[in-house]
Amino acid sequence: MNQWQLDTRLAADSVEVGEHGSIQIRAMPAAPWPWLILVPRYPAAVEWFDLPEPQQAQLFELAMKLAAGLKSEFGADKINIAAIGNVVAQLHVHIVARHHGDSAWPAPVWGKSYEPADEPAQTERLRRLRRVLG
Amino acid sequence: MNQWQLDTRLAADSVEVGEHGSIQIRAMPAAPWPWLILVPRYPAAVEWFDLPEPQQAQLFELAMKLAAGLKSEFGADKINIAAIGNVVAQLHVHIVARHHGDSAWPAPVWGKSYEPADEPAQTERLRRLRRVLG
Repeated sequence: MNQWQLDTRLAADSVEVGEHGSIQIRAMPAAPWPWLILVPRYPAAVEWFDLPEPQQAQLFELAMKLAAGLKSEFGADKINIAAIGNVVAQLHVHIVARHHGDSAWPAPVWGKSYEPADEPAQTERLRRLRRVLG
Repeated sequence: MNQWQLDTRLAADSVEVGEHGSIQIRAMPAAPWPWLILVPRYPAAVEWFDLPEPQQAQLFELAMKLAAGLKSEFGADKINIAAIGNVVAQLHVHIVARHHGDSAWPAPVWGKSYEPADEPAQTERLRRLRRVLG
């Protein structure tokens, strides 16, 4: 696990809200959509299948747990789960709560620009995202 | 497992290329990007976490295996894996092989329109996608 370092773009766009095993849990509080990002602290992992199998499964199980929690906390109509990484290669998994009629619906949120939420809204969003982490 | 029926839009856009347990494996041969779609034959599943845990894991493990296979077969720069379902609610998982400079790069492919490949190209694409299934 040495030499792992968070990608600078992930560091700039999101904030750490928790950890689970070797997985850092981050949030995008300024986004219009409730949005968590899971980043395994595993050097050089780009694809999900680059991880050893136990870590693959751990990341998957955490994604399922947080996806269900996001759906419940935010009353979401749909959860979007994705490992894309075309822009930031470092392995990371998105979990995004979507609602009918949200500002990107029904398109995916990745690559959509948005007006960042104001500070009080970000604080409230973070409070609720942390609640999902339990 | 009774009463499962493939969503009509998935049926129209993709073709069945295989099965693994209760998961139907489909391909999008007309798309510019090598693209598989996994559809668990599980009635009323919308979210990945709607499946019983063994089926969740089975779907994940198949996604990992096919993702690695796609990367190898097509020499992809990145594999995109996603459960979105904002348009088609029936649970399905996308596995898409991406290359630097492909017609959507670096954006995700979902929602991108494209000119369908001609018949010989589709036949060749299907041949290679089936090879990934082993």
